[in-house]
Amino acid sequence: MKLSDIAKLVDGEIVGEGNVDIRQVAKIEEARPGDITFLANLKYKKYVVTTLASAVLVSKELPLQEFAQRRKALSFVVVPDPYRSFLRLIDTFQPAPAGAGLKGIHPSAVIAPSALVDADAAIGAFVAIGEGCRIGPGAAIHEGTVIGEGAEVGEDSLLYPNVSVREGCRIGSRVVIHSGTVIGSDGFGFAPKPDGTYEKIPQRGIVVIEDDVEIGANCTIDRATIGETHIGKGVKLDNLIQIGHNVVISENTVIAAQSGVSGSTKVGKNCSLGGQVGLTGHIQIAEQTKIGAQSGVGKSITEPGKTYFGYPAREVRETLRIEAALARLPALLGQVRELTNRVQELEKSLRPRKIRKK
Amino acid sequence: MKLSDIAKLVDGEIVGEGNVDIRQVAKIEEARPGDITFLANLKYKKYVVTTLASAVLVSKELPLQEFAQRRKALSFVVVPDPYRSFLRLIDTFQPAPAGAGLKGIHPSAVIAPSALVDADAAIGAFVAIGEGCRIGPGAAIHEGTVIGEGAEVGEDSLLYPNVSVREGCRIGSRVVIHSGTVIGSDGFGFAPKPDGTYEKIPQRGIVVIEDDVEIGANCTIDRATIGETHIGKGVKLDNLIQIGHNVVISENTVIAAQSGVSGSTKVGKNCSLGGQVGLTGHIQIAEQTKIGAQSGVGKSITEPGKTYFGYPAREVRETLRIEAALARLPALLGQVRELTNRVQELEKSLRPRKIRKK
Amino acid sequence: MKLSDIAKLVDGEIVGEGNVDIRQVAKIEEARPGDITFLANLKYKKYVVTTLASAVLVSKELPLQEFAQRRKALSFVVVPDPYRSFLRLIDTFQPAPAGAGLKGIHPSAVIAPSALVDADAAIGAFVAIGEGCRIGPGAAIHEGTVIGEGAEVGEDSLLYPNVSVREGCRIGSRVVIHSGTVIGSDGFGFAPKPDGTYEKIPQRGIVVIEDDVEIGANCTIDRATIGETHIGKGVKLDNLIQIGHNVVISENTVIAAQSGVSGSTKVGKNCSLGGQVGLTGHIQIAEQTKIGAQSGVGKSITEPGKTYFGYPAREVRETLRIEAALARLPALLGQVRELTNRVQELEKSLRPRKIRKK
Repeated sequence: MKLSDIAKLVDGEIVGEGNVDIRQVAKIEEARPGDITFLANLKYKKYVVTTLASAVLVSKELPLQEFAQRRKALSFVVVPDPYRSFLRLIDTFQPAPAGAGLKGIHPSAVIAPSALVDADAAIGAFVAIGEGCRIGPGAAIHEGTVIGEGAEVGEDSLLYPNVSVREGCRIGSRVVIHSGTVIGSDGFGFAPKPDGTYEKIPQRGIVVIEDDVEIGANCTIDRATIGETHIGKGVKLDNLIQIGHNVVISENTVIAAQSGVSGSTKVGKNCSLGGQVGLTGHIQIAEQTKIGAQSGVGKSITEPGKTYFGYPAREVRETLRIEAALARLPALLGQVRELTNRVQELEKSLRPRKIRKK
Repeated sequence: MKLSDIAKLVDGEIVGEGNVDIRQVAKIEEARPGDITFLANLKYKKYVVTTLASAVLVSKELPLQEFAQRRKALSFVVVPDPYRSFLRLIDTFQPAPAGAGLKGIHPSAVIAPSALVDADAAIGAFVAIGEGCRIGPGAAIHEGTVIGEGAEVGEDSLLYPNVSVREGCRIGSRVVIHSGTVIGSDGFGFAPKPDGTYEKIPQRGIVVIEDDVEIGANCTIDRATIGETHIGKGVKLDNLIQIGHNVVISENTVIAAQSGVSGSTKVGKNCSLGGQVGLTGHIQIAEQTKIGAQSGVGKSITEPGKTYFGYPAREVRETLRIEAALARLPALLGQVRELTNRVQELEKSLRPRKIRKK
Repeated sequence: MKLSDIAKLVDGEIVGEGNVDIRQVAKIEEARPGDITFLANLKYKKYVVTTLASAVLVSKELPLQEFAQRRKALSFVVVPDPYRSFLRLIDTFQPAPAGAGLKGIHPSAVIAPSALVDADAAIGAFVAIGEGCRIGPGAAIHEGTVIGEGAEVGEDSLLYPNVSVREGCRIGSRVVIHSGTVIGSDGFGFAPKPDGTYEKIPQRGIVVIEDDVEIGANCTIDRATIGETHIGKGVKLDNLIQIGHNVVISENTVIAAQSGVSGSTKVGKNCSLGGQVGLTGHIQIAEQTKIGAQSGVGKSITEPGKTYFGYPAREVRETLRIEAALARLPALLGQVRELTNRVQELEKSLRPRKIRKK
């Protein structure tokens, strides 16, 4: 691939020779002729002098004139974010194998007679696929994953090892689900009985996961009581996330690791939640809301586009003001005590005078 | 089933014809003649006019006179909570299949020669059952689940796919364990050595799970160091919960998702913990204690029946008072500053006068 | 084993007969002649009178003179911590079987032709080992565990059932990984696009786990974007822990359950983190830092050996001072209100006088 083509791909500007052939990506200290590399941190600019690479992605912060004499052997591509451009080139030069490399149907897989597995799907060792399942073309179901009766996995979706999908759940196209995640476990619903024990409320709904969703490792997404728990198109969930029954996560919302959304809560589109956030049940979060890590949200957020933070979550400026004030609270106690003494002194010094004046 | 029998079952009062035959449950907009449905939210009462159902569960808030002309085709059953009554009818008309539908012993299962699997138990594909295990009648062990040496699973218990039960653990009757959960992993015990490394403390106890317990997906319940980690009868655990070694959770306690109980802590009967709660190790929680979501409990709670909340957890009224006060803290700082100025002014205005008096 | 040898092993002092033969460990109420037991809590000292054991580990707090008449049948070993010494003896008398008892290669295991599995490794039922993997001597890979292409597991390492190791990850020697844990899932990296959707950033690095690490159940350790996520020698992780991409956990650091470390953060040597702690991304934690349970750390900690606590985390004394102050905050609001009134009264009582003085 010509460097000039790469420059177009990453929307960069060439300083040097655009006609050079690039065959591979590499780290700056390991690169060889024919490789393209990147310099994200100016702290490491010494490597620009020594690298054997043919080209390097740099930001406009790099004083290129310092390296003028290197330009015979080395071309530069100036981009806004060298690291991100480099990551994009990884996918160009080392494309991820389809289905994470899984091919064919492993003879050990147990596929129910009535399951419809596309001829172009890949099924790993020790995969169990229940009656009436549908597995789309290009889908890859890795080792040890279990797909319950009547569940569906769409085109080009990728389920890593040891995922559990319970009966009837529907997974769209180009969905990625990482290892250990459980889709469609029973929602947590128990009705208290007078004797202190609990009666299980049947959980007969399903989970629907729209297209282009990615779900991290060891998440749990509970099936609805009735109806569906819904994960919208393009949603991205990190690891160890809990999604309760009948929750709706709307499209393009991203949630960081170890967060939990309680039953029947609806999170709007394009929201972002930090790690270890908790949302209580039966609330609504307006679209484009941002919620800081470890926050606890106990009531609906109705105005879109705001940033919340804290436990309990408040608008971020308010939480920061409270936090700053908190640091001064111990001193404040002392100040108020001192002030009380001074007022008492003032009161004393006034009272006698008044008496004298009588 | 006659509607009059259903009315008895859900403890409701019939308005209309009790002799009508009911064959199925359905959502109000999808119901057909012979179905019973429900109306939980008065917002949707227009469906009462159009539904094809033969009967509808309603609350006494519904003004039945508005629908008087519908009573030829439609009967009503007035109940305190139509949704809950409907859920109960789901179980009546669509009973969950025993063992979540698993039947027989799958030929791929690996069952150790000395394991005793009841003839009436169901064992899924890729299940491994170790030496000396006992699996009771009616138990269902789903695909990919692993039962370690000498472990026991009681009558009618249901283990979903990809559960791991380690050696020697004892699971009672009618227990439900959701996918990905780990029973009997080693407790977290390491003794520091002078050189900064750690020596593993052997974890040779077990986990005992009493009857009628339900444990959500991807939980971890550690085995005891010696003795047992104990989950009492009727306990209900949500997903992603951590139970440390030698913990005792007493009967009928419920814990919401992502909470953690540290080693050797004892939680009393009939407690309820919200999501993402943390309990420190070696404490005791009195029975019937309620702990709000995301709370952190660092010391024993000795008086039963109280509600705690916050980080650190305090009695809920106290936490709410502090939280309310916190919102006013930034303003308070300003008030105290202003007050200090005013006191200073007062002091100035008094001091000179005193001098003049000399 | 002679009691005198045991005394040397636990660094204890014998009171009684050192020449007695000890054959087993047991709890004090179940012990029989030939057994050694322990008394950790003086509350149970009555058992010293009735036990059938031949020896008992005690602390110097036990008034041995009270049991002088028992010394014919019973010898004492005085140690600083009887419980810990007892745990050590468990390992002496009931050594854990190598590989947690797993032996040989189960015929159901699927091992890729190019994988190198040492003749002395043990591979359980339904284990899948990918192309190019290397499994060292003495390693034990339990039922349902999946090892991705090119991954390595070192000598004497122990992977419990249903672990998932993704392609290319490297696990050292004497590493223990508990059930359900996922090593090498994709890091959580998505670049926002102008239309509100996200583009996946390729995650092509690996996870490297050094020797003598122990990782609890249902943890998730993400692979690096490029390069490696690194778990240093001797690190101990509890259950349900999230380690983000490109994180470094340095040697001998211990982390309690349900904590999370966000991407690219570096935790120094010999740190200890409590449960449910969250560290933000791209920060550094100095060595020997201690962080209390449920703390949230949002910026680097540069000075080694300090203790932090709280949300947001502050040095522990400061957090405790703030917490103590917080309990007094509601009262403070009242005090300031009252003080304001008193100052107003003072101002009133002064102002008129001033006027009069004119």
